[in-house]
Amino acid sequence: MIEEIEILIEEKKFNDLRRVLESMNSADFPSIFEEVSDDKLIVIYRILSKEKAAEVFAELDSDIQEKLINSFTEKELKDVINELFMDDTVDLIEEMPSNVVKRILKNVKSSDRKIINELLNYPEDSAGTIMTTEFVDLKENMTVEQAFEKIRKIGLQKETVYNCYVLSVDRKLKGIIDLKDLLIAEKDEKLKDIMNVNVITTNTLEDKENVAKMFDKYNFFALPVVDKERRLVGIITIDDAIDVLQEEVDEDFSKMAAVSPSEDTYFKTSVFLHAKNRIVWLIVLMLSSIVTGAIITKYEAAFASVPILVAFIPMIMGTTGNCGSQTSTLIIRGMSNDEIELKDYFKAIWKEFRVAILVALMLGLANSIRILIQYKDIKLAETVSLSLLGTVVVAKILGCSLPMLAKKLNIDPALMATPVISTISDMCSVLIFFKVATWVMGLNITI
Amino acid sequence: MIEEIEILIEEKKFNDLRRVLESMNSADFPSIFEEVSDDKLIVIYRILSKEKAAEVFAELDSDIQEKLINSFTEKELKDVINELFMDDTVDLIEEMPSNVVKRILKNVKSSDRKIINELLNYPEDSAGTIMTTEFVDLKENMTVEQAFEKIRKIGLQKETVYNCYVLSVDRKLKGIIDLKDLLIAEKDEKLKDIMNVNVITTNTLEDKENVAKMFDKYNFFALPVVDKERRLVGIITIDDAIDVLQEEVDEDFSKMAAVSPSEDTYFKTSVFLHAKNRIVWLIVLMLSSIVTGAIITKYEAAFASVPILVAFIPMIMGTTGNCGSQTSTLIIRGMSNDEIELKDYFKAIWKEFRVAILVALMLGLANSIRILIQYKDIKLAETVSLSLLGTVVVAKILGCSLPMLAKKLNIDPALMATPVISTISDMCSVLIFFKVATWVMGLNITI
Repeated sequence: MIEEIEILIEEKKFNDLRRVLESMNSADFPSIFEEVSDDKLIVIYRILSKEKAAEVFAELDSDIQEKLINSFTEKELKDVINELFMDDTVDLIEEMPSNVVKRILKNVKSSDRKIINELLNYPEDSAGTIMTTEFVDLKENMTVEQAFEKIRKIGLQKETVYNCYVLSVDRKLKGIIDLKDLLIAEKDEKLKDIMNVNVITTNTLEDKENVAKMFDKYNFFALPVVDKERRLVGIITIDDAIDVLQEEVDEDFSKMAAVSPSEDTYFKTSVFLHAKNRIVWLIVLMLSSIVTGAIITKYEAAFASVPILVAFIPMIMGTTGNCGSQTSTLIIRGMSNDEIELKDYFKAIWKEFRVAILVALMLGLANSIRILIQYKDIKLAETVSLSLLGTVVVAKILGCSLPMLAKKLNIDPALMATPVISTISDMCSVLIFFKVATWVMGLNITI
Repeated sequence: MIEEIEILIEEKKFNDLRRVLESMNSADFPSIFEEVSDDKLIVIYRILSKEKAAEVFAELDSDIQEKLINSFTEKELKDVINELFMDDTVDLIEEMPSNVVKRILKNVKSSDRKIINELLNYPEDSAGTIMTTEFVDLKENMTVEQAFEKIRKIGLQKETVYNCYVLSVDRKLKGIIDLKDLLIAEKDEKLKDIMNVNVITTNTLEDKENVAKMFDKYNFFALPVVDKERRLVGIITIDDAIDVLQEEVDEDFSKMAAVSPSEDTYFKTSVFLHAKNRIVWLIVLMLSSIVTGAIITKYEAAFASVPILVAFIPMIMGTTGNCGSQTSTLIIRGMSNDEIELKDYFKAIWKEFRVAILVALMLGLANSIRILIQYKDIKLAETVSLSLLGTVVVAKILGCSLPMLAKKLNIDPALMATPVISTISDMCSVLIFFKVATWVMGLNITI
């Protein structure tokens, strides 16, 4: 595809080029724009029809958008801005450097400027920042026929015509009506008689993650956003909700891997920023592993008299850490899917306790067999199996408790994921292991 | 909400109960059905209107669906089944025990039975398993007015009327047309003149995860599914695509935590199944940590003469493991978001190498300062910093290479996540640490 386009540009076959480009989906342009040279990028963009150009523009990454804007005349910029939906304009303004923002605002219709300013002022991560103000609003006393007339007239400029909103004179949300319902209704029926009055809404200040979860639960295409007086101020469409869900997942993965989430994609994040995003957690976790080291040092006499004990440290630490992160991951996911709630704490602990016992028995058995075959040392087998029983139970209980405690304290549970759990369980595992060893083997250690 | 409903049932205020229930969104019923007793569950369900009942039924978990079906008369069962969309019926059949399946199939319209059988026969995880056969099909030569007539007539039984599909006489997909486009077109225009012919489609055998990603990229509401001859056999709607994306994320989280993915939610999975899902990976990872232990045993002489070395094992192992899983998580996410491709291998390695050097220098510095203050031992500081330099670079390169190698070999990259990477990096870290120690400290060790 890219080769074909590049050849058409080089051979100056612009009619063919236009035909190819217009037949493509606008979501296919970003990957092409990433690959071609800046000159070709501008050629491709200028050959598009005005509507297609605006559609494509909204899909692009901010660095490409900036390149294009810098190549635009004021007239071209104005055309693009006025074709964009309000929420895309706001996203653009948030990403651009201040000189570009000035040019954009200069070219926005003055009627839109006020709305844009309002949208820009919603708190970070609130529903207000992802909503659009372009919805179809109808009146209670309209007939179905009048509604169709209005939709035909204004529909093209709206993000969706499939959900329409019925407002009172003072713009309070009275009901919603789907285009489908209008289609099967009689022409002279009044909207107030056929609209759905059980409307689920959100408000401008709601956390956007909660909003996205509502889409997942209710299978909405669009969700109305109201202010304190229940006046309709905007709608959130499903495409924006999906983006929020994806962002949230990316963040959770980052936290599970002890990386501070990055605003940008992998390759667009600089080496320095990558290092910065990772070093903080590494230092924190390193400090705590020093504690584990100190515990081991305390038991120097133990491994001085039974050196084979040291060889079991990685297995005990590793298995305990893995057990803990298995549990914490399942609990964190369960909480973020709203299956596990704080009131389920004891139910979850009881479940994990039983799983821990089963898992520990199997691991202990496997280890005992191996130790008896390899070292023929019953005391060692006892030490390792008993230690595993203790460490696995502790790890599973920690893995269950810490994320739920975090949620209780309004800290993001995902921060309690793998690295934190496994570091804490490291300490516990080493401590339990040496305690059990000194007891089972009857080592005489003075600490 | 639940209390209110329970009181209404106990006081037998069925009219009020009906009013409350009918005003609720069907997605709010599952959580109520989970909480109430079986008797009340059936009372609530029976009081719903036929349409609402079918809507609610499709939302319920399979254990509740089974309870309800067991309480149904044949007539009631028939009513529910015939109101369900085809894809929901198929889901239901897949979840129910065989005696219930027999009852369901007996009550399916004979015309639907063939379609259901076809849908049941698509390979696991293919697009065919999540598509529905209930779409609006129009003909090329229809006028806009005729199209509206047909949509009005058949639309209510279809999953969506907002995307309509234009078929040739032999049911080949010629184009799509959105209800929005029909709305603004003239009544006597022919569909073939206004339909969009650049249709993005998928086929019945495509992996459902790839299909879900197409929704994310193109912001579709529905995607047509065609067979080899480009005949339209079904459509996939966005709600099913979102479910697939969520499932995939749950699976990735499970793999990252070394748990075999569960079909069911946390509490619905039995203690035995939880243990089984976790023990396999624990045993595998335990076996590999035995290798790490063996490496340590080889260097017994080293820590016998410098016991403080043992205290640094947890820090070296932990930090190396964390560095590796940071990288592997970012690479796995980047690949699943299609940002990182196999051809980017050297670009990614070069990036990770530079990040590793920066991170290792900072970690080495922090450790050296601490060691010089606490132990005043330059050789130890040198050993630890040099080891970190080696282990961090190795961990980052492994963390980058293994997931990409897995993808190259068509293994799921997520399997290479945290636990596997950290176990492999454990071995490398211990080996590097003792090698460096014997070299820097001039220990004379015969292995």
